[in-house]
Amino acid sequence: MSAPAEGNQAYGKKPFKRSTSHFADRITADGRDGWPVEAGRYRLVVSRACPWASRALVARRLLGLESALPLAVVDPIQDDRSWRFTLAPDGRDPVLGIRFLAEAYDARETGYPGGVSVPAIVDVPSGKLVTNDYQRITLDLATEWTALHRPGAPDLYPEPLRAEIDEVMEGVFRDLNNGVYRAGFATGQSDYEDAYRAVFHRFDLLSERLADRRYLVGDTLTEADIRLFTTLVRFDAVYHGHFKCNRDKLTENPVLWAYARDLYQTPGFGDTVDFDHIKRHYYQVHTGINPTGVVPLGPDPAGWLTAHHRERLGGRPFGDGTPPGPVEPDERIPPAGRP
Amino acid sequence: MSAPAEGNQAYGKKPFKRSTSHFADRITADGRDGWPVEAGRYRLVVSRACPWASRALVARRLLGLESALPLAVVDPIQDDRSWRFTLAPDGRDPVLGIRFLAEAYDARETGYPGGVSVPAIVDVPSGKLVTNDYQRITLDLATEWTALHRPGAPDLYPEPLRAEIDEVMEGVFRDLNNGVYRAGFATGQSDYEDAYRAVFHRFDLLSERLADRRYLVGDTLTEADIRLFTTLVRFDAVYHGHFKCNRDKLTENPVLWAYARDLYQTPGFGDTVDFDHIKRHYYQVHTGINPTGVVPLGPDPAGWLTAHHRERLGGRPFGDGTPPGPVEPDERIPPAGRP
Repeated sequence: MSAPAEGNQAYGKKPFKRSTSHFADRITADGRDGWPVEAGRYRLVVSRACPWASRALVARRLLGLESALPLAVVDPIQDDRSWRFTLAPDGRDPVLGIRFLAEAYDARETGYPGGVSVPAIVDVPSGKLVTNDYQRITLDLATEWTALHRPGAPDLYPEPLRAEIDEVMEGVFRDLNNGVYRAGFATGQSDYEDAYRAVFHRFDLLSERLADRRYLVGDTLTEADIRLFTTLVRFDAVYHGHFKCNRDKLTENPVLWAYARDLYQTPGFGDTVDFDHIKRHYYQVHTGINPTGVVPLGPDPAGWLTAHHRERLGGRPFGDGTPPGPVEPDERIPPAGRP
Repeated sequence: MSAPAEGNQAYGKKPFKRSTSHFADRITADGRDGWPVEAGRYRLVVSRACPWASRALVARRLLGLESALPLAVVDPIQDDRSWRFTLAPDGRDPVLGIRFLAEAYDARETGYPGGVSVPAIVDVPSGKLVTNDYQRITLDLATEWTALHRPGAPDLYPEPLRAEIDEVMEGVFRDLNNGVYRAGFATGQSDYEDAYRAVFHRFDLLSERLADRRYLVGDTLTEADIRLFTTLVRFDAVYHGHFKCNRDKLTENPVLWAYARDLYQTPGFGDTVDFDHIKRHYYQVHTGINPTGVVPLGPDPAGWLTAHHRERLGGRPFGDGTPPGPVEPDERIPPAGRP
């Protein structure tokens, strides 16, 4: 998501409504939508600024899909043609050969009038967008791409726990993942206040839930943790001030702050996070709520590396599996984006 | 200050420069500028939102000048004619008989082209503005209005300490009182960053200075504490998010947070503070940095009432004097503005 359309939509009417993904084909083991799982065939396009895309960054790392599903990272700042490959040496994705993600959308559907969003998976041979379905992509990485998972990959969406995971994720989506946007893009006081209250109501519920359990569901990392993490890691950097979710900072909530640091310090989570991309994107792209485009210098992200002591709660982060290995050199977060 | 001109000035050019007061006549014991100190002759016009005006609110309370210098509180939201008496029953100040503070400026100088700012002291018989000199007004209340001080009033600007008080206030003015505005109204990244660094450099210096001494200068309350307080009390409510001074919240700085609570809980300080006026003014008037006008619900101000333990550092808040009595009923802060 985080498409410019999101901004337009936000300022043009109220309350803020998130658009659903238009391209919802699935890449599956059996290839029933015409897109079979295949190593090296697809390209995952993300913005490291975007929480929806960042889910896929974390899942891909945890599952060891880096070489099977190569990555293209777009510039955190969109222009009027949306996400751009301006971080690549000549401003062109070296594999897809395109300058704008919109070109892959056009290849799939000429004159598509909707927004261009990330995460997006593009079919390399045809250059066509396959899916921008941010709610489905990570679940399919966990359950359809299993043949290509690394040895020791965790089960992020275990069959017996799916009902509980889905329920937890539904509340997290409504009140937090999307709730912070409803607060930040509200153009009216009462829409804002409704969203704010939902955000902190969910904060309180999750804080209680996580007080004596290390992870959201079961005793291992699951998709539910990924989806909560991508919002929490942005909370103090952008949602607290820019989106006016300012009852507390994350750092003022002992349980959630320790939980978030625990995940951040787990291989596959923090090593995907670029605070520089996050802050520049939100503060420079949303000119409707930050007309000057000035990017705040604070807060200091060094706290993300401090001890969390959550291992005392037990839990087996990777279940019977193992943590992912180190990040490939070409995917490492530059110093500007690290604590 | 906090005049609309401040906003125009801020967005029209950069870096932000605070205008100096145009009307700098002094009300003195000897009346040398034509304005002798006299009980009931003048009217103090303030916005409770404005930190510059709030200095006068605190000094007036500490010195017991309430009946000698009656008060008019303007609406926290200016319109295109600036500060309004819309909180008075018929939208007109009952003593001055005017609807806009600008009318007192006009009475003093026809067609005055500058901004209309608070604090302002108006001569009731003539209806003319006497002074809007926010840097001088409180010093004169402390040193020229002595004949009208209450019994037990503290000496807020003691002769032997003036050099030190002036020096402390100069740094506080440049880096904090005005520094937060330079950060918030910056239209360019580097102007913002310079101001932000000055704000937190001063935070660090003051934090060190106040670690083992209860007050800024000497062992009693002085004008220096008043001027630091009016910025600190607004810090988390508006400067942290709205002005992007977000390295830390005040509540994250143990020394300054305890110092600020100590003052807040001292009669004459917290009882002049209206958080509702503060938040509505900043977030609704500065449309150039908050176009939606949405006012954040957070943070919770309840912490202002918690124990600060600063009495352990000693100090004699009022020196050989005594605290002021309770606030007159008609000047009490409404529930919406209180913690």
